[in-house]
Amino acid sequence: MTSNQLFEQIRLKKSFLCIGLDTDLSKIPQHILASEDPIFEFNRAIIDATADLVVAVKPNLAFYEVHGAAGWNSLSKTVKYIRSKYPNLFIIADAKRGDITSTAKMYARTFFQSLDCDAITISPYMGKDSVEPFLDYKNKWVILLSLTSNQSFSDFQMIENKATGKRIFEEVIEKSSKWGNFDNTMYVVGATRAELFKDIRKVAPDHFLLVPGIGEQGGSLQDVAHFGMNSKCGLLVNSSRGIIYSDNTVKFAESAWNKASQLQQEMQQILQKAGLLS
Amino acid sequence: MTSNQLFEQIRLKKSFLCIGLDTDLSKIPQHILASEDPIFEFNRAIIDATADLVVAVKPNLAFYEVHGAAGWNSLSKTVKYIRSKYPNLFIIADAKRGDITSTAKMYARTFFQSLDCDAITISPYMGKDSVEPFLDYKNKWVILLSLTSNQSFSDFQMIENKATGKRIFEEVIEKSSKWGNFDNTMYVVGATRAELFKDIRKVAPDHFLLVPGIGEQGGSLQDVAHFGMNSKCGLLVNSSRGIIYSDNTVKFAESAWNKASQLQQEMQQILQKAGLLS
Repeated sequence: MTSNQLFEQIRLKKSFLCIGLDTDLSKIPQHILASEDPIFEFNRAIIDATADLVVAVKPNLAFYEVHGAAGWNSLSKTVKYIRSKYPNLFIIADAKRGDITSTAKMYARTFFQSLDCDAITISPYMGKDSVEPFLDYKNKWVILLSLTSNQSFSDFQMIENKATGKRIFEEVIEKSSKWGNFDNTMYVVGATRAELFKDIRKVAPDHFLLVPGIGEQGGSLQDVAHFGMNSKCGLLVNSSRGIIYSDNTVKFAESAWNKASQLQQEMQQILQKAGLLS
Repeated sequence: MTSNQLFEQIRLKKSFLCIGLDTDLSKIPQHILASEDPIFEFNRAIIDATADLVVAVKPNLAFYEVHGAAGWNSLSKTVKYIRSKYPNLFIIADAKRGDITSTAKMYARTFFQSLDCDAITISPYMGKDSVEPFLDYKNKWVILLSLTSNQSFSDFQMIENKATGKRIFEEVIEKSSKWGNFDNTMYVVGATRAELFKDIRKVAPDHFLLVPGIGEQGGSLQDVAHFGMNSKCGLLVNSSRGIIYSDNTVKFAESAWNKASQLQQEMQQILQKAGLLS
């Protein structure tokens, strides 16, 4: 998918919502546990309920790997289901890998070929070598950690480079934006850092940003949109637990639709106000 | 395993060699491909041949994940085989994960409980939150990327902090050494950076270092030992392709033994010279 195609989906659905599939057997409704593949069944119900409201889906690899081979099967089935039934949903493998050369090539093959995801999240610590192998795939994306939403983000990301005066998260964006372009590279920027979106838009005016941290972590959708939106929206805002675990009875999918719908409506207003739906 | 127990193994085997299991179906001997689980069969042969010469084994996750559920089964079988037959081998999941809170907890469960590895490699970009959940496991280890052996290491790792004058790889070591200690934390330091081992030993005199990059990448074992060894050895030096792909005929395991043996003998001399075997 290109950035223009992604923007088209955003306009079509009046939404820039990404739903995170952090599917945890200890949190999903009891009645699903009896099915043969509870993780897949839960995911399918959530996707079916919300597919008209979201442009992206983000399975979090840790929640699948913890079940070993069975978990990989659940993940693979989930991706195949989305691909066949909702071909325009943008699938992000939230894997936060970060390795080099032949290893990075293997990861790219895993997530772009074997699994046919659209994008993978990557940790930039090892530099260009850990990003380039992913950029060889046409219409696929790397999403680099830049400024994360967690408490200890400042341990390294906020360190100021003595030589350039730029902070590490800015160095990551500035350097990596030369390795790829706004049609194959995005950045993770936490919603809890709304005041820094302005600085990020200076170095990456055209790139899409994947934004976790609204809801539970305290980030504000309005602030994110105010400081981070560009002329092609340029935002994918993620919500995981706030949507998928809003109810754990037989009505969980309906409840997920409700929660996603609230966010979609807020997004529609934001897009309208910005003149991006006309 | 504690650092003392690891040192005991090093003294016993007169070796600080780690063997990397980057098991690639396109590179292993043809005759193995006919077996039911070629990856496991190859690993088993390599481990059986070299177990008396190495203290650690490092499966590289990318090479298993690329085969999906089947790859996880091969990995799981490999770890179980080592655990049952060579209980004193230190098993490193070379996964380079780096995520936070509930996700990091899931990764810890995956690699320390489900798979029962001794250690996992972690990318430090997200800070303390991405390390702490692993430190809750007794006698298990995190191995943080610090100064890597690849070409683009300097993109971010060599940036100097304006406030402290320290480079990012030093910041990683200095900060994280306060989150854990030398009995649960190691650092990845590339053999190609021998001149910087002195600086690393200033901030981490007692920690074990996992050292890739000898052989093909040009790092020197003698330099690594000269600048990086401490009073309890403090080094695990990895070799992957140089050992496991030294021959791709039916004699591959014998050849792997030969290559590992050459390195072990060099290590024995180094340990002897340093007075660590007496």
